[in-house]
Amino acid sequence: MVLKLNTAAMSTCGRRVAVVLHEKKVPYELIEPNWATMEHKSENWLKNQPFGQMPYIDDDGFILFESRAIIRYIATKYASSGTPLLPSDTSDLKAMAILDQAISIETSNFDPNAGGLMKEKVFKKMGGQEADPAFVAKYEEGMVGKLDGFEKLLSKQKYMAGDSLTFVDFYYLPYGAGLEQMGYDYLTNGSKHPNVARWWKEISSRDAWNAVKNGIPASL
Amino acid sequence: MVLKLNTAAMSTCGRRVAVVLHEKKVPYELIEPNWATMEHKSENWLKNQPFGQMPYIDDDGFILFESRAIIRYIATKYASSGTPLLPSDTSDLKAMAILDQAISIETSNFDPNAGGLMKEKVFKKMGGQEADPAFVAKYEEGMVGKLDGFEKLLSKQKYMAGDSLTFVDFYYLPYGAGLEQMGYDYLTNGSKHPNVARWWKEISSRDAWNAVKNGIPASL
Repeated sequence: MVLKLNTAAMSTCGRRVAVVLHEKKVPYELIEPNWATMEHKSENWLKNQPFGQMPYIDDDGFILFESRAIIRYIATKYASSGTPLLPSDTSDLKAMAILDQAISIETSNFDPNAGGLMKEKVFKKMGGQEADPAFVAKYEEGMVGKLDGFEKLLSKQKYMAGDSLTFVDFYYLPYGAGLEQMGYDYLTNGSKHPNVARWWKEISSRDAWNAVKNGIPASL
Repeated sequence: MVLKLNTAAMSTCGRRVAVVLHEKKVPYELIEPNWATMEHKSENWLKNQPFGQMPYIDDDGFILFESRAIIRYIATKYASSGTPLLPSDTSDLKAMAILDQAISIETSNFDPNAGGLMKEKVFKKMGGQEADPAFVAKYEEGMVGKLDGFEKLLSKQKYMAGDSLTFVDFYYLPYGAGLEQMGYDYLTNGSKHPNVARWWKEISSRDAWNAVKNGIPASL
């Protein structure tokens, strides 16, 4: 049975999963919850995703949520399909530790700030609310404060987990694109952070991202 | 050479690593940076931890940062020492995906809120600043909003990644204990969230946590 991706087509975390499905050429069926009835807060949805979030997948009866975990599962299960997105030797304890380090860097140093800005300046507006300037300032400061660290990291290696592309690089796409759309040049200012800009340009110009960035297609 | 744990003894993320070193009975040497000179922001520190954070480990020349990644590395490298903290079959793709799901739940649904409250109400105070009521309210609301999800999850399984204790349960300790110290009953109110309270009581009463919670000892 084809993998079922349960998410709104525009969901940031849904698009995070979808770009990897496209990159790995894994067929899927998009199943969108009903926004009007807030289906993702219904008891039926909560059976599969107890926090009322999206996306979750149903892979022939195996239910999994959290976009980053889904991506690692897909990259591992379909290791030989599409673009390789794992360290070349997955039995190498140190290589896998560096991968886990990269996973944590994204969730600790990037997501809270970039995601926070999206929530204030994009999601709130969609709900008819105004951005709170105190929160915006905090997340802007947080984002600026991390860029030197990212530059240092990417001056020593090509990608987030070393010199090979891995699934972790794809974690950055939805909120990274959001930063650009909001007019921030954190990831694009090559004179301030040349290696960040070099990395971001490569990641964000991939065909798989172009295929899903404006909304997940119904299937591959 | 004994594993070197570079962190302040009271660091929340440092104690997160230390409790697992104690649980796994892995010898270590604590190396504290100089707070007075802000050593963790020095060029020397940044060579090993480009974001100027703590902890990082030096395991016979292998440098690794991000507490959650360090913990997974220790749990894997020392799988047969001390308490088992991995799924019983680490080659089981689905079991490992559920573990990754648990890892993401902590960083997405718990850490931003519990950690946010700590930053406002504890760390700011240590720096002579006042908590910002708007931020406190946001994190309190965020924390409350997740508890039903955690209760639902823990009503179906004993621990965060299933019916066996794993290293992910330990991720919650420093900020979970912080919530209690700040007077929040989110994790202890058995009448509201009996399974959360049952789980938290077991995790937070472990000997390894008692050994490190008030400051990491110089060695095992």
